[in-house]
Amino acid sequence: MDQEAQKDETTVTQFLDAVASGSATPGGGSVSALAGCLGSALVEMVVNLTSGKKVYASDEEQLGKIRAEAYSHRQSLVATIEKDIAAYQEVMKAYLLPKTTEEEKKRRKEEIQSALKKATDPPLYTAATSLKVMKLCQEALEKGNPNAACDAAVGALMADAALRGGIFNVLVNLSALDDKKYVEKLKKELRRLGQEGARIKEQIMLLVNQKIFPR
Amino acid sequence: MDQEAQKDETTVTQFLDAVASGSATPGGGSVSALAGCLGSALVEMVVNLTSGKKVYASDEEQLGKIRAEAYSHRQSLVATIEKDIAAYQEVMKAYLLPKTTEEEKKRRKEEIQSALKKATDPPLYTAATSLKVMKLCQEALEKGNPNAACDAAVGALMADAALRGGIFNVLVNLSALDDKKYVEKLKKELRRLGQEGARIKEQIMLLVNQKIFPR
Repeated sequence: MDQEAQKDETTVTQFLDAVASGSATPGGGSVSALAGCLGSALVEMVVNLTSGKKVYASDEEQLGKIRAEAYSHRQSLVATIEKDIAAYQEVMKAYLLPKTTEEEKKRRKEEIQSALKKATDPPLYTAATSLKVMKLCQEALEKGNPNAACDAAVGALMADAALRGGIFNVLVNLSALDDKKYVEKLKKELRRLGQEGARIKEQIMLLVNQKIFPR
Repeated sequence: MDQEAQKDETTVTQFLDAVASGSATPGGGSVSALAGCLGSALVEMVVNLTSGKKVYASDEEQLGKIRAEAYSHRQSLVATIEKDIAAYQEVMKAYLLPKTTEEEKKRRKEEIQSALKKATDPPLYTAATSLKVMKLCQEALEKGNPNAACDAAVGALMADAALRGGIFNVLVNLSALDDKKYVEKLKKELRRLGQEGARIKEQIMLLVNQKIFPR
């Protein structure tokens, strides 16, 4: 079986067992990406329980757009589960390089720095994409079938956890990086994502209280 | 293949596809339970990356206890993914009962009320158990290998999303229930779980800032 097919055939139980095991991957980075996938899938579900019904006919085009975006984010976040594992394995490989001679020490340090920098990509992607998924959850709450509002709300919780988890994982890698300019650039981006996420989550929770739990 | 074996062989892709589809199950309730599983698995991972190392020898007994509890919660939350689907299918079946005669209307109403009441069990279990998982994440952050602190932190985010998602799903069912005494009893329990969760999450975020992102 090629690697692509094998990945698609990982069972939920196998994935949970792999997380629980004493190997460093898959860990919090991959779990965050999966949480983003779950948020995307819930957006798709809400649209599928809304679209095609007469009463929502005027929103049909918008609903189709939401579903297509959520599906696309789900697919790229599924790929990010594996990318996070691969990137972190490169970091571990770099740490295992020989460090006896000065030349070796220098090379090892460079490889570690390079691998750490690359390892910020998957969780940064998870954070940025999960923020987009949160926005789709908000649209699904606003436009979607009220009977599925709770599913959109849970989607937002998953996307929020994915966003925060992505941010944590980038920050951990940044803490070991020497390139201060790169570190500052990414920290600024993480702050933006975090603030935007907090703002949207607040709006979603107001909607949840209006739509699901009116007094 | 019997149902038990089939359940264990659901792939991650199949589960996400099933959530995304236009059927009402699996939905937010099952996704919340899975988030609790992911939190539990991350606790186990942190313990497995800590236990057996000389420097943590004095915590070995405590670490073993944390791992055993997390494993047990993971198994029961995996079962809750399916229980939530089954309970919600009973609700939908009750709504489809005939409602022509007065007798039928009366029976249908009773069946809906009974099914809704039973459908509060899985998400209430998810909420209560995910709160326990959050507490284990806190212990894993306190006692665990600092290299895995970020994984414990992501575990807490997943357990928190599972707790909130469980609460949302119970509340949605309660909103259609006539038994006011039962509704009030459960709402009180949900408030307790929510407040306790908020308190522990705050403590965890303080720990995360200390352990992972010291200034």
